[in-house]
Amino acid sequence: MLTEIDHIGIAVPSLDDAVELYRATLGLAPLHAEKIESQGVREVLFKVGSSYVQLLEPLGPDTPVGRFIERRGPGLHHVGYRVEDVTASLAELKERGVRLVDEVPRIGSMGNTIAFAHPEAFGGVLVELVEAR
Amino acid sequence: MLTEIDHIGIAVPSLDDAVELYRATLGLAPLHAEKIESQGVREVLFKVGSSYVQLLEPLGPDTPVGRFIERRGPGLHHVGYRVEDVTASLAELKERGVRLVDEVPRIGSMGNTIAFAHPEAFGGVLVELVEAR
Repeated sequence: MLTEIDHIGIAVPSLDDAVELYRATLGLAPLHAEKIESQGVREVLFKVGSSYVQLLEPLGPDTPVGRFIERRGPGLHHVGYRVEDVTASLAELKERGVRLVDEVPRIGSMGNTIAFAHPEAFGGVLVELVEAR
Repeated sequence: MLTEIDHIGIAVPSLDDAVELYRATLGLAPLHAEKIESQGVREVLFKVGSSYVQLLEPLGPDTPVGRFIERRGPGLHHVGYRVEDVTASLAELKERGVRLVDEVPRIGSMGNTIAFAHPEAFGGVLVELVEAR
């Protein structure tokens, strides 16, 4: 079902500071920046091999990432797994009794089709499925 | 410096239960299992494309992963980035003022050469550098 780790999502209080940190320490250059109102985040993507590192700054405290930072502090927020067909993978997970956040896929960053499972379904790990545009 | 996301490390209370969960829901089959006394963990690796998913069960409560689970609950624990030369990358990070856990590389799972930076250096993200054996 899973073809790659598409990305890791990292919650940061300040996107500008985090982008500068990743540039200055790891030599990464931003590939893509986007504001996703529906998810309450601004994001920057870096490419690392076949995968991305996604920095996520909340648009406000009352957003999923804002509440995550309030509760747990900044850090690793979720993992995105690449799949060929999100709709098919979602149906398989549902059949296997996996608790989902998204019953139907939606559009995420870079126009990809995505869906989230519930963190309780994977032992505290928020899992996203990603079908590349 | 970074060539791939080598792996994501996930803290789990029970390796057997987690392996069964990943098999039953995502169809992943264990590739490698190892007990690493020096890090206080038992681990199982799954291959996902160019990367691995690493499940980590603490050998006891008074281990880094045991304390992590006690403090934050099970879930995403660290990210391992693949590099060509851990010694050279570590020297670069040190030169850039990055706070490290390992001042010199050591041997990790599968005989790889690894080193950890301090989570405070990367905004709450525990970062591991991995040079494949």
